[in-house]
Amino acid sequence: MARLRSIWLQELTWEDVADYLRTDDIVMFPVGSTEQHGPAGPLGLDSYAAIALAEDAAEKAGVLVTPPLWFGDSPHHLDFPGTISLRTETLVAVAKDVIRCLARKGFKKIITVNGHKGTNIAALTTACRSLHQYELPAVLIALVDPMYLAKGIAHIKEAVEHHAGELEISHVWHKYPHLIRSDKLTSEHVGLEPILSPFVHRDLLGKSGDTIEIFWNSAEQKGFAPDGSFSNSSKASPEKGQKYHEYMVEKLVEFIDWLRKYEGPIGRG
Amino acid sequence: MARLRSIWLQELTWEDVADYLRTDDIVMFPVGSTEQHGPAGPLGLDSYAAIALAEDAAEKAGVLVTPPLWFGDSPHHLDFPGTISLRTETLVAVAKDVIRCLARKGFKKIITVNGHKGTNIAALTTACRSLHQYELPAVLIALVDPMYLAKGIAHIKEAVEHHAGELEISHVWHKYPHLIRSDKLTSEHVGLEPILSPFVHRDLLGKSGDTIEIFWNSAEQKGFAPDGSFSNSSKASPEKGQKYHEYMVEKLVEFIDWLRKYEGPIGRG
Amino acid sequence: MARLRSIWLQELTWEDVADYLRTDDIVMFPVGSTEQHGPAGPLGLDSYAAIALAEDAAEKAGVLVTPPLWFGDSPHHLDFPGTISLRTETLVAVAKDVIRCLARKGFKKIITVNGHKGTNIAALTTACRSLHQYELPAVLIALVDPMYLAKGIAHIKEAVEHHAGELEISHVWHKYPHLIRSDKLTSEHVGLEPILSPFVHRDLLGKSGDTIEIFWNSAEQKGFAPDGSFSNSSKASPEKGQKYHEYMVEKLVEFIDWLRKYEGPIGRG
Amino acid sequence: MARLRSIWLQELTWEDVADYLRTDDIVMFPVGSTEQHGPAGPLGLDSYAAIALAEDAAEKAGVLVTPPLWFGDSPHHLDFPGTISLRTETLVAVAKDVIRCLARKGFKKIITVNGHKGTNIAALTTACRSLHQYELPAVLIALVDPMYLAKGIAHIKEAVEHHAGELEISHVWHKYPHLIRSDKLTSEHVGLEPILSPFVHRDLLGKSGDTIEIFWNSAEQKGFAPDGSFSNSSKASPEKGQKYHEYMVEKLVEFIDWLRKYEGPIGRG
Amino acid sequence: MARLRSIWLQELTWEDVADYLRTDDIVMFPVGSTEQHGPAGPLGLDSYAAIALAEDAAEKAGVLVTPPLWFGDSPHHLDFPGTISLRTETLVAVAKDVIRCLARKGFKKIITVNGHKGTNIAALTTACRSLHQYELPAVLIALVDPMYLAKGIAHIKEAVEHHAGELEISHVWHKYPHLIRSDKLTSEHVGLEPILSPFVHRDLLGKSGDTIEIFWNSAEQKGFAPDGSFSNSSKASPEKGQKYHEYMVEKLVEFIDWLRKYEGPIGRG
Amino acid sequence: MARLRSIWLQELTWEDVADYLRTDDIVMFPVGSTEQHGPAGPLGLDSYAAIALAEDAAEKAGVLVTPPLWFGDSPHHLDFPGTISLRTETLVAVAKDVIRCLARKGFKKIITVNGHKGTNIAALTTACRSLHQYELPAVLIALVDPMYLAKGIAHIKEAVEHHAGELEISHVWHKYPHLIRSDKLTSEHVGLEPILSPFVHRDLLGKSGDTIEIFWNSAEQKGFAPDGSFSNSSKASPEKGQKYHEYMVEKLVEFIDWLRKYEGPIGRG
Repeated sequence: MARLRSIWLQELTWEDVADYLRTDDIVMFPVGSTEQHGPAGPLGLDSYAAIALAEDAAEKAGVLVTPPLWFGDSPHHLDFPGTISLRTETLVAVAKDVIRCLARKGFKKIITVNGHKGTNIAALTTACRSLHQYELPAVLIALVDPMYLAKGIAHIKEAVEHHAGELEISHVWHKYPHLIRSDKLTSEHVGLEPILSPFVHRDLLGKSGDTIEIFWNSAEQKGFAPDGSFSNSSKASPEKGQKYHEYMVEKLVEFIDWLRKYEGPIGRG
Repeated sequence: MARLRSIWLQELTWEDVADYLRTDDIVMFPVGSTEQHGPAGPLGLDSYAAIALAEDAAEKAGVLVTPPLWFGDSPHHLDFPGTISLRTETLVAVAKDVIRCLARKGFKKIITVNGHKGTNIAALTTACRSLHQYELPAVLIALVDPMYLAKGIAHIKEAVEHHAGELEISHVWHKYPHLIRSDKLTSEHVGLEPILSPFVHRDLLGKSGDTIEIFWNSAEQKGFAPDGSFSNSSKASPEKGQKYHEYMVEKLVEFIDWLRKYEGPIGRG
Repeated sequence: MARLRSIWLQELTWEDVADYLRTDDIVMFPVGSTEQHGPAGPLGLDSYAAIALAEDAAEKAGVLVTPPLWFGDSPHHLDFPGTISLRTETLVAVAKDVIRCLARKGFKKIITVNGHKGTNIAALTTACRSLHQYELPAVLIALVDPMYLAKGIAHIKEAVEHHAGELEISHVWHKYPHLIRSDKLTSEHVGLEPILSPFVHRDLLGKSGDTIEIFWNSAEQKGFAPDGSFSNSSKASPEKGQKYHEYMVEKLVEFIDWLRKYEGPIGRG
Repeated sequence: MARLRSIWLQELTWEDVADYLRTDDIVMFPVGSTEQHGPAGPLGLDSYAAIALAEDAAEKAGVLVTPPLWFGDSPHHLDFPGTISLRTETLVAVAKDVIRCLARKGFKKIITVNGHKGTNIAALTTACRSLHQYELPAVLIALVDPMYLAKGIAHIKEAVEHHAGELEISHVWHKYPHLIRSDKLTSEHVGLEPILSPFVHRDLLGKSGDTIEIFWNSAEQKGFAPDGSFSNSSKASPEKGQKYHEYMVEKLVEFIDWLRKYEGPIGRG
Repeated sequence: MARLRSIWLQELTWEDVADYLRTDDIVMFPVGSTEQHGPAGPLGLDSYAAIALAEDAAEKAGVLVTPPLWFGDSPHHLDFPGTISLRTETLVAVAKDVIRCLARKGFKKIITVNGHKGTNIAALTTACRSLHQYELPAVLIALVDPMYLAKGIAHIKEAVEHHAGELEISHVWHKYPHLIRSDKLTSEHVGLEPILSPFVHRDLLGKSGDTIEIFWNSAEQKGFAPDGSFSNSSKASPEKGQKYHEYMVEKLVEFIDWLRKYEGPIGRG
Repeated sequence: MARLRSIWLQELTWEDVADYLRTDDIVMFPVGSTEQHGPAGPLGLDSYAAIALAEDAAEKAGVLVTPPLWFGDSPHHLDFPGTISLRTETLVAVAKDVIRCLARKGFKKIITVNGHKGTNIAALTTACRSLHQYELPAVLIALVDPMYLAKGIAHIKEAVEHHAGELEISHVWHKYPHLIRSDKLTSEHVGLEPILSPFVHRDLLGKSGDTIEIFWNSAEQKGFAPDGSFSNSSKASPEKGQKYHEYMVEKLVEFIDWLRKYEGPIGRG
């Protein structure tokens, strides 16, 4: 995007944003978490994932990105020092407020980019669905999450992927190599079936059979996964991270391109 | 269950429930919706689905069921007369209150049975996760939904299944035949890709590729699906409904049996 | 009502409801509770009362009924297993959401039928009054409760009537005979004056002198009424239940007839 | 009460209150409203009623009174200038906060004195019941209201009493004669049956038959009672006010005396 | 103000207020607290301060005053008997409701007069700012507080002034002499630097250097200021109170006069 | 701080934080805003201020910093594109959640560093005061703001400083030079007295006389300050920014050093 000095809204003046809005109306809002990611991953891993995806897709697609939200919905990690979790209703409130403000002055297509695989989804869905139904019928609101966007590339991983797994470690390793303690990668994984039933959704980036959800809390998690990692991360690598990242960026850019030309019914409000 | 006169808690006296709790601690809470299901399906379809699953599994497994909640989170159907939707935060509050009361006098394993494929999941996840983390560490809370439980049987359907689709119509047709207007089944389906992008999750009971969610509201839905149905229901039949139902009941009973013998860490709080 | 296949909204399709709304605009919303009613009454007693009143009045008057809400505001019963109580604010929220949705597509006269004598009134009054003042001036909202509607028939009872008393037991006995444990009726009653002062409102369906309310909680109630019943129910009978029921249904039908012809100022908004 | 310089808590120092709590534990909390009371009554009428009752009963019984809350729940009067109404949920919150603080340092018997006949009851009941159940089992909470306390004296009035009626005007006339515009008393009354159905509760201080509540809003009320009064106040007099007031004060003192000796189960928490 | 019988809204009829609004649109809303003010000051001190300021300025300027709110935001005083504190969110809700009602029928310039130096400011700012931004752009809302209004007269005091200090004691002594226990004045003051750091804001009515706020709670305060007073009040006198009071009244009247002629942009909404 | 690889918590693993907590218990939480700062300042200016202060003080003092919150309470800027404001209650909720999580695993001294001069104070005070009173008596919570911390250095500025003024522009210019559009500095300033009365607080970093607050909204602000700046920024310079920054960092480090040795009563809970 030649026109703007930065894709990051916080680095621009309001006049820069006003300029952008004369011809464009797309913006991304990255939402992460600050939660433990095992001995090898940084507490900000999910936030870095959202930031990296939004930033690189924005550079390619020429759209703006808001400042990131570094805090997500992570109650089950609260017994590991450093985890900072918003209550679900707080995250709903933040997402609603951010999107309302963006919509107020002319953003019409707002893409929430979640870096926190799955776990923020309840809050973000609540916020986005409610806003579009009751307050912002004239705004198209989308929600992106690696757990759903990366299905086509997940085959590159070698291990079952759950929390602090091979691909999410690889992702940050590729983009922010100094943040991964590669000496702390692990080949252990937590067998979840005895804990959460044979109906557990065991591989967040893979296939699963019939599933039933059992909720666990942070004290229980500290018990069954004492070092914080659920997954074998020993096969993680920056190279895998690069493939995984570039795949998602490409998909996200495809989506933005589709959105730019969109003339369908959603958000015509 | 010889001992009790009914699996339905509302038909019993408090002394009956006290008796039950002397030896058992499992209960199911069925949650549905009152929302349009096209010209052929009754407004209560999702509630009937939850009631039927809970009732038949309870009879087989010998556990109690609370009265159903007939109202779910259905904002996108509000432009069809008869739809009654709770706000997401209201549904969270109801689910929390119900589970708190059950836990108070000794239910230790509480299974929320959602009949409303997917759409209630944000609220129910919010309620269950938050309760188990912050208030009820000593209670195991599970969440069942046909969208996740019926993966192993979904292959019997012939059409892409979205709202008011082949299997959910079949389900109610099997259990409550007088509630299906079989003369109003349709072979139309709404092509969602032009509306919701190529990244749409098109088959709620089937495979999907990389997906990104775009939220739509009730006015838009009335526009793109004016009769309320999204899906080809012409291949629906009570026979398919029976297979679908019995598969899920069997899985749910398997889960309850597993739960009964459970000695794992969750809910030891 | 020849035209409709059922007075229950949940059994109809949205097109059926749309048809109804072309010529009618009245609907009833039954609200009960799931709370202990002594050794003889089912936990769902209040819900059954609301359902029976709404259903029979609807059949006679030819109006629609929404699915019932099985949960009410019953904190003082929480120490009896099986009681499921919503917080007052949750009940307010549910009632508001239900009425908003009904109003949205054209119901203009909405009758909340409370089966839970008195105790739900704070929440339902809060919801109805607030909605009509601030959101739905063009909708007439009414609230029916046996405690106020049955004054003219209360003389048929022989005992002081408080919780789990002669008439409410009789009511369900008449309509749902299998739900009453007639072998568990009691001739005991709890003398409330020493507990709640001489200013207690002792007979919910009878006269009272100057009253002052003292609030009691579930632990205290378990102490002073250990089997859950406050009242002598030994004179209950299906015959009394029939008179009581038919009286209220007749009054409710009279009210609906009056409402149908109403041209007064309320709800002209 | 020789010991204290004032029955009004706000006039005392904290050390005075600490002294009081060494031997006593009863306090009254007066709640009124600021709402129109027709051309003859002051906007603060309900607050003056609560203040007068609490003050005179406190002087006689030797107990403390908190500062009054001048604002109640009066949405239906909002179209008359000068009315200031709290939302129901705000009034609940205020009442809870006040009672919590009183309980914190040792008040064990807290009497809420409502001067706003009936209309504040939903909020005050919600606050008191919820506090005693969930937070303050060791505090006895009572609720006094002229509509229920004055039944035994209501026979002295000559007219049907509804808003701005004979006895409530008389009450303030007796205690605060300069606040009544006696030149503006009216012999008109609003016939409520055509407006609110034959099931209306027409006489707030008298008998009523079978009733059903229809909620009205402030715009409607401005239409059917344009000067704000519902009732014939022409027979009001300071003499009637004195009888009415003294009767209620006597009853309230009786209640406080009963409470002082109370050893029953409530509030033993 | 010749025209009106009282500056206190609660003493007037709604017709009086309607008259006032034909030519005027200014009103004051006094907000105080009920919190301990040491051995010499009454619990209602802040409320009396707000009442006195509003009343005397209203008499001089000829404007109306609403009934006072006797309860403020005083959590740090809760361990002293008699303190009654609203939660911050409750105070926000009350202030919003009061201002909304005033605005509804034509008050266009609403002055909140806070008597509770500083401590209510968070809640009152939240309420006023939010209302003017989101709901009442056509109403000018102002906030007055002695801590900011009395800078020009603070030099008359001789001691460092913090809670229960020289000038606030003097203020009430001047206006309500019977409410001050002059035998209990103290020459002690609490040295806050060792407790709250050298960056403490030590003199609420005086100069301060670079400050950082450390929050303290009621248990800690009971520890470091066991008699409730923070400040040397031995130099308090009715004469100082008169100067302090008259200065603020004069400033407030100047402000009202300015407001009356105001044609600027705020509140033109 | 030799021991840790970063002062930023999000860059560390949970084990790093656990190590830190073995010997330390201080953490800073930077809170900014995303709001217009005139033609020369970036939208993230307040966030950059908070980040810079926290980061440099943390490096010097050897303490940890949480990820920043980029969104504050900025309703009056909402009519300038790019402004993203949380509702006050949302900011309260976020601050409470963050501080609760930090406290949960052992941070005992939590310093909120506000970069948004004054405007976030209502929310942050509400959160911190309420937490310390009701939930976290054993945690010391402090609040830092340039408006109060920089009094001793404010004399270096040459102009009256209000929004987008000389020193805040200088601050970011010093730390993040590429973010200031120095070609857009202005010598204009908005004379606030005619708009907000002679009682306006005109210089946020300077002396003021007797003040009364009038709240303005975003539409009004767009009118009286159309380019977003209130202040003459023409004298801004990186050199002034350096002095201003270093002064505050020095003070903050002094405070942290004091806190480290603190043995006083606050937070002993």
